[in-house]
Amino acid sequence: MTLRIALDAMGGERGPEEMVIGAIQAVEESDLDVTLIGDENVLNRVLQNHPRASSRLHIVHASQTVSMDESPFEAIRKKKDSSIIRAFEQIKNGEADGVVSAGNSGATMVSAIKSLGRLENVLRPGIASIFPTLKNPLVMMDVGANVDCRPQHLFQFGVMGSAFSDNLFQIQKPRIGLLSIGEEGGKGNVLVKSAHELFRKSSLNFIGNVEGRDIFQGDVDVIVCDGFVGNVCLKVSEGLAEAIMTMLRTEMSKSFMAKVGYILARQAFRNFGKRVDYAEYGGAPLLGVNGTGIVCHGRSNAKAIKNAIKVAAEMIRSKVNGHITQMLSEFNPAQAEEVQNESDAVQKPGEIE
Amino acid sequence: MTLRIALDAMGGERGPEEMVIGAIQAVEESDLDVTLIGDENVLNRVLQNHPRASSRLHIVHASQTVSMDESPFEAIRKKKDSSIIRAFEQIKNGEADGVVSAGNSGATMVSAIKSLGRLENVLRPGIASIFPTLKNPLVMMDVGANVDCRPQHLFQFGVMGSAFSDNLFQIQKPRIGLLSIGEEGGKGNVLVKSAHELFRKSSLNFIGNVEGRDIFQGDVDVIVCDGFVGNVCLKVSEGLAEAIMTMLRTEMSKSFMAKVGYILARQAFRNFGKRVDYAEYGGAPLLGVNGTGIVCHGRSNAKAIKNAIKVAAEMIRSKVNGHITQMLSEFNPAQAEEVQNESDAVQKPGEIE
Repeated sequence: MTLRIALDAMGGERGPEEMVIGAIQAVEESDLDVTLIGDENVLNRVLQNHPRASSRLHIVHASQTVSMDESPFEAIRKKKDSSIIRAFEQIKNGEADGVVSAGNSGATMVSAIKSLGRLENVLRPGIASIFPTLKNPLVMMDVGANVDCRPQHLFQFGVMGSAFSDNLFQIQKPRIGLLSIGEEGGKGNVLVKSAHELFRKSSLNFIGNVEGRDIFQGDVDVIVCDGFVGNVCLKVSEGLAEAIMTMLRTEMSKSFMAKVGYILARQAFRNFGKRVDYAEYGGAPLLGVNGTGIVCHGRSNAKAIKNAIKVAAEMIRSKVNGHITQMLSEFNPAQAEEVQNESDAVQKPGEIE
Repeated sequence: MTLRIALDAMGGERGPEEMVIGAIQAVEESDLDVTLIGDENVLNRVLQNHPRASSRLHIVHASQTVSMDESPFEAIRKKKDSSIIRAFEQIKNGEADGVVSAGNSGATMVSAIKSLGRLENVLRPGIASIFPTLKNPLVMMDVGANVDCRPQHLFQFGVMGSAFSDNLFQIQKPRIGLLSIGEEGGKGNVLVKSAHELFRKSSLNFIGNVEGRDIFQGDVDVIVCDGFVGNVCLKVSEGLAEAIMTMLRTEMSKSFMAKVGYILARQAFRNFGKRVDYAEYGGAPLLGVNGTGIVCHGRSNAKAIKNAIKVAAEMIRSKVNGHITQMLSEFNPAQAEEVQNESDAVQKPGEIE
């Protein structure tokens, strides 16, 4: 069966053309169908620049766009005909199997939950992020959807991240680490110490607390944290990597010798760039919603979009959601009653980023 | 007047010799007196290797050592004759003006508060860290002493960091930013949103929320966060910087051209290394205690120790503590009564790292 991915073609900071090129590349390199959701005049005009675009590329009109700095809840309430809402409605109506968006990540999460609901037993859906490390990529969850968490939420992030890591990276019994500020179980804040107990008592492959410096070593497969800490980690990493490259380039342009050195080592720099390029991983999967969605970086280029579309398809094919549901019923029976409280599933406006 | 700095000569992962060399260098490059605190047999033996060591170097015996992974509260309760306790007693007894330690940072903080108490109006002393940026160094507080905070604690971290930045880096009206996951005031967790209001209503130079990626740009002078988030930031930065250098070196050793390039650009790499070297900044000042203390990285080399000794002297000379007291009486009158609750000043055992 041909899978169909709906792409929020109005999302992202680079404009619709970049999104469309990503979609064209994804279609060319796979057997997927991609539906571009957005202003049909704009999208048709863009497609005219690419006359050989595949017939597996479709357009569905949406007259509105949610901008990057809009309040997610307000935007979703007001802009019923926005590209991101229409994209998730495609899944709801059986017209698509997954969604990719480089737009407002909060609005993407809210639309997903509103259109698709949560998977059984999920207290709080979240955003997982894939980090490059010195070994295998790791999954960190949550990176921004849930800024104030309870221990059970962290526990479920571990379960969901574990299912994702297993299905997408073929890691059997992924090693789950709890992000804290010391390795001993007694280290951390109140939230982390309680979560540590939940993990310790479970039969998950919990390796204990991990620290910020462990993220890039590749000795842990899933890192659990609340969405505030996770989002800070993500942005600190991004900012530092950029600052280091800026400093290195500055130093390397200061002398003739260094400049020659830089030119000779250019390929090494490029290979390095590829290793830490977020575009290689496409985007951050929403886990816990009853459907498949990927949030891409606002600055995503065509390559990132192409890869995100492929990851979305891979998530569907490998049945991550089925695995999450199965694991949650196995590992989390006691907390199931909490799910009744629907209002708990979504944070208050403005808390999602 | 000659300032006297007490150095916990048994702290740090590199052993007493590295500490002693740092002290010797500090004494040679300044007019300071340094007292080495630790096992006098060990220290005398080390000093014999350095026969020309200055007469401004002294030894005070302490028979015990607190190890890096000991619980701070337990260690301080049990090891009355440990080098870190004896170091702060030097200040208490008027025999030293400041303390430097590369040992257990929690134990250092607890000893400092126990021996010296807090400055007037301080709710929670904390650990500030100095980050290199693309422009001026910035002060981040707290980076590990207070893992569960209230909004007033964050507010005071901003005030204390501001006084430090002003006195040590001569930055008039330092720009204070609150670490969050979005720039708008409504973004963040419950703690950060309340703290935002306290800052906004004050007449401090508060520039609003800043994000993880802003840390290294140098457009903010003081970043405020709780000790859990700050410690994670610190360790993520450290881990990522190391991973990036490892990856770059690996790529650069893969081809002959890249190897030659690396050799030609070696000086640029060295200059870069110097810009991001924690040893340049010496260590992290304890702010809010009624005295002067610097916590150094456990892996500190002699250079880091030397610089930390100089920073301690600079803190004393520039009267940072007087400035903190004055600013807190100006900016924080309403919360003063909270200080009565002594038990609040120190976290529960195991929460300090």
